[in-house]
Amino acid sequence: MQMVSIVFHITNSVTINDCANITLALGGSPLMSYCKEELREILSFSSALVINIGTMESKMCEMVVEAGKLANELNVPVILDPVGAGASASRENLVKKLISNVKFAVIKGNLAEIKTIAGIKNENNKGVDSVEEFENSSSLAKELAIELESVIAITGKEDIVSDGKRVCKIKNGTPLLRKVTGTGCMTASLIGTICGAYREDIYEGATLGVVLMGIAGEIAEKSLTSEEGSGTFRMRIIDNIFNMTEEKIRENIKINFEN
Amino acid sequence: MQMVSIVFHITNSVTINDCANITLALGGSPLMSYCKEELREILSFSSALVINIGTMESKMCEMVVEAGKLANELNVPVILDPVGAGASASRENLVKKLISNVKFAVIKGNLAEIKTIAGIKNENNKGVDSVEEFENSSSLAKELAIELESVIAITGKEDIVSDGKRVCKIKNGTPLLRKVTGTGCMTASLIGTICGAYREDIYEGATLGVVLMGIAGEIAEKSLTSEEGSGTFRMRIIDNIFNMTEEKIRENIKINFEN
Amino acid sequence: MQMVSIVFHITNSVTINDCANITLALGGSPLMSYCKEELREILSFSSALVINIGTMESKMCEMVVEAGKLANELNVPVILDPVGAGASASRENLVKKLISNVKFAVIKGNLAEIKTIAGIKNENNKGVDSVEEFENSSSLAKELAIELESVIAITGKEDIVSDGKRVCKIKNGTPLLRKVTGTGCMTASLIGTICGAYREDIYEGATLGVVLMGIAGEIAEKSLTSEEGSGTFRMRIIDNIFNMTEEKIRENIKINFEN
Repeated sequence: MQMVSIVFHITNSVTINDCANITLALGGSPLMSYCKEELREILSFSSALVINIGTMESKMCEMVVEAGKLANELNVPVILDPVGAGASASRENLVKKLISNVKFAVIKGNLAEIKTIAGIKNENNKGVDSVEEFENSSSLAKELAIELESVIAITGKEDIVSDGKRVCKIKNGTPLLRKVTGTGCMTASLIGTICGAYREDIYEGATLGVVLMGIAGEIAEKSLTSEEGSGTFRMRIIDNIFNMTEEKIRENIKINFEN
Repeated sequence: MQMVSIVFHITNSVTINDCANITLALGGSPLMSYCKEELREILSFSSALVINIGTMESKMCEMVVEAGKLANELNVPVILDPVGAGASASRENLVKKLISNVKFAVIKGNLAEIKTIAGIKNENNKGVDSVEEFENSSSLAKELAIELESVIAITGKEDIVSDGKRVCKIKNGTPLLRKVTGTGCMTASLIGTICGAYREDIYEGATLGVVLMGIAGEIAEKSLTSEEGSGTFRMRIIDNIFNMTEEKIRENIKINFEN
Repeated sequence: MQMVSIVFHITNSVTINDCANITLALGGSPLMSYCKEELREILSFSSALVINIGTMESKMCEMVVEAGKLANELNVPVILDPVGAGASASRENLVKKLISNVKFAVIKGNLAEIKTIAGIKNENNKGVDSVEEFENSSSLAKELAIELESVIAITGKEDIVSDGKRVCKIKNGTPLLRKVTGTGCMTASLIGTICGAYREDIYEGATLGVVLMGIAGEIAEKSLTSEEGSGTFRMRIIDNIFNMTEEKIRENIKINFEN
C-alpha cells in the first residue's frame, strides 16, 4: 500500500524501530523526535501524531503535552497509546494531564489502560502486558468515546472500537501477538498512518489499523514452521503489513458491528 | 516455557528491544522504565531487576543506584550487567558506586568487566566486545562471589558461574554470538527471568540463563544456510529461546562442575 | 570480512541497534555512548566516530560538538549523518554548529540534507525519508567537498561521492532500501567501519561503504519470495554484509568515475 502520511511519533525507546518500520511497511513516512524546540515545525507538515508513554520520564512528560496541544492547534490528529497507564501514579498523572489538555482522535490501549483512563479502580493492573477480560468493554468504549469525544480502541482477545455512536468487535489476531514486544505500539503506528492519510472517518481508520495488525499476525502465525518462533513471527508481521492488500483484508476480516 | 516473572529492566538503548523480546520468548514479562518517580511502584510488583549500564549517562547513574537499593529493600533479586566497566573512569565509578550500595543476586560480565569489578588492573580492556582469556577465571569468580555475596558469571569462550561455594564451567555457545550486539544483555535478561521465577537457588538460575543462550546460539548457528548470516542468526536466537524445552537442554548442555 | 575498527557512534535511538549490528557484520566493533564524561577516554581508542543527529535533543547537541572537536584533536576520522537537516531550524542550527566546529572526514546525506548544508534554500524538504533528484548533484558534492575539505556522499536513486578532486556516481541499490528505516544510518556505520580501518583514502572508504549497502540491498531484494517483504529484507541486508566478499563486490559494483 502507499499512503501520503507523515507520522510523527513521540514514543518509547523499546519499540521505536518497529514503529518506524511498520509505518514504512504500510506506505507511510515515520518521523521520530524528542526535540521540544522543533515540535511546531515538524507538526506543521505531519499527517498525524502518535504519543506513546511506554518509557516516559519527566522530560518526555512535558514534551508530549506540548506536542498534543500544538497538534490540536494545527489540526493534526493525535493518537494516544497510554502504555502501562495504571501501573504507577506517575503514568496515571501523565495520562490525566494529557486527557485534560489534548483532544485525542484515537485512544488505543488494553482494558487495564482504558479502565485507568475511565477512572475505574483496577486492582489487578500489573505490568504492561496484562490483559484481562471484561464483560462490558463495549459500553466502556462507547461511554468513554462520548465523554472524551475520541475514538476508543480496546485491544485484547477481542478488540473493541467505538466512536460513541458506532461500536465494533474485532476477532482477528492470535495470542502469539503478546509474545512480541511492541505489537500494541505498532498498532498505534498503523492507526496513525491510516488516520493521517484518511482523516474523514477516524473511527474507520482506527478500526482498520486494529484489523490489519490482527490479520498480519494470523498470516504470520500460519507461516511458522516448528523451528520458528517469536523472532521470526515478529519479522513476518512487518512482511505481512508490507504485502497487505484489500483482498487479503476482505478475506480475513472478522468483525461484528454492534451498533 | 512459561514463567511468572515480571522483569524490570533499566538498560541500554542499543539492545532494549532484544532484551524485551527474549524475556517474552522465555515466558516472562519485560518492563522497561527510565522514570525515577515510579521506581518503588514498579519494583513492588517486579520479580527481578536487571541493571545494564551499556549506555549509562548522568541521569541513569542516579536512577540505577536508587533502583538497586529499593530492590534490596523490597527483596527483589538484582542482576548487574556492567557493560564496558573498564572502558572509562565514569563506568568504573558507576560500578563501584553500585557495588558499594546494592547487594546483587548476580553479576554477569566478560572477563574484562569482572576483573574491573575485582579491582584488578587491566590494561587491555578496550571496548565492550573484547573478551580475553584468563587462566584463573574460576578462582576469580569464586573469590569475588564470596567477597560480594553474589553469584558471579564470567562469559567468554567458556563461561564460569560461581556462588562462592559451587563453581561450574559452561562450554556451550559459539563465537558467532559475538557478531550480534546484545547477546550478553539478553543473557542477563534470561537470568533475570529465571531468577525472578525461581528465587530458591540463584546460582542455578544464573547458570541456566547462561546455558540457554549458549544452546540457543548453537542451534541457531547449525540452522544457517550459506546465504544467511548474523541477521538471521539474531532472529533465530529468539526463536530458539521461544522453542526451548527441557529435553533440548538435557541433550545439548555442556557443563563441568568444579566444586 | 574482518576489520580492526572500533566505531564510536553517537546516534539516534531509532536505528541504534541496526547500526551496531551492521558494524559487527562487517567485522568492526561498535561502541555507543551518550555519556559526555567518557568522551575523551572512549575516543582515545576509537578508530572512527559516527555522528547521527536523527533523534537529537538539547543534551545531544552539546555532546556531539564536543565529541567532534575531541575526535579532531585525537586524529579520529569523523563521519556526519545530518538526518533531517533541513526539516527544522533546530536541526539546521546544530548542523551549522557542527560544520563550523568540527572537521568531518565524511558527510553523508540525501540531497535535501546536503543542500541544507550547502546553504541552498530548499522548500520541499519535508521529513527524513524524502529524496528528490537534482541535476547538479555532482557539482554540488564536488564544490562542497572543496569548501569543507570533507568527502561528500549524496545518497539517492544514484549516489554521488566526491572529495573535491574525484567524483563517482554509484548505481547500486534498490528503492526497497527506503522502505526500511535506518539504511542510511547503517551506510554511515559502514563508512565509519571502513574509514576507521583504512584511513589512507577516506574517499575510497566512503565510496565502498555506499557501494556495500547498495549491493547488500540488491542481493537481499533478489532473494525475497512473494510472501516476504520489508521485514525479511531488513534482516537480509545484515546477512549480506556479513557474507560480503571482494568477489561479490567486483561482480555487482556499478560505478562511474566522473573525474
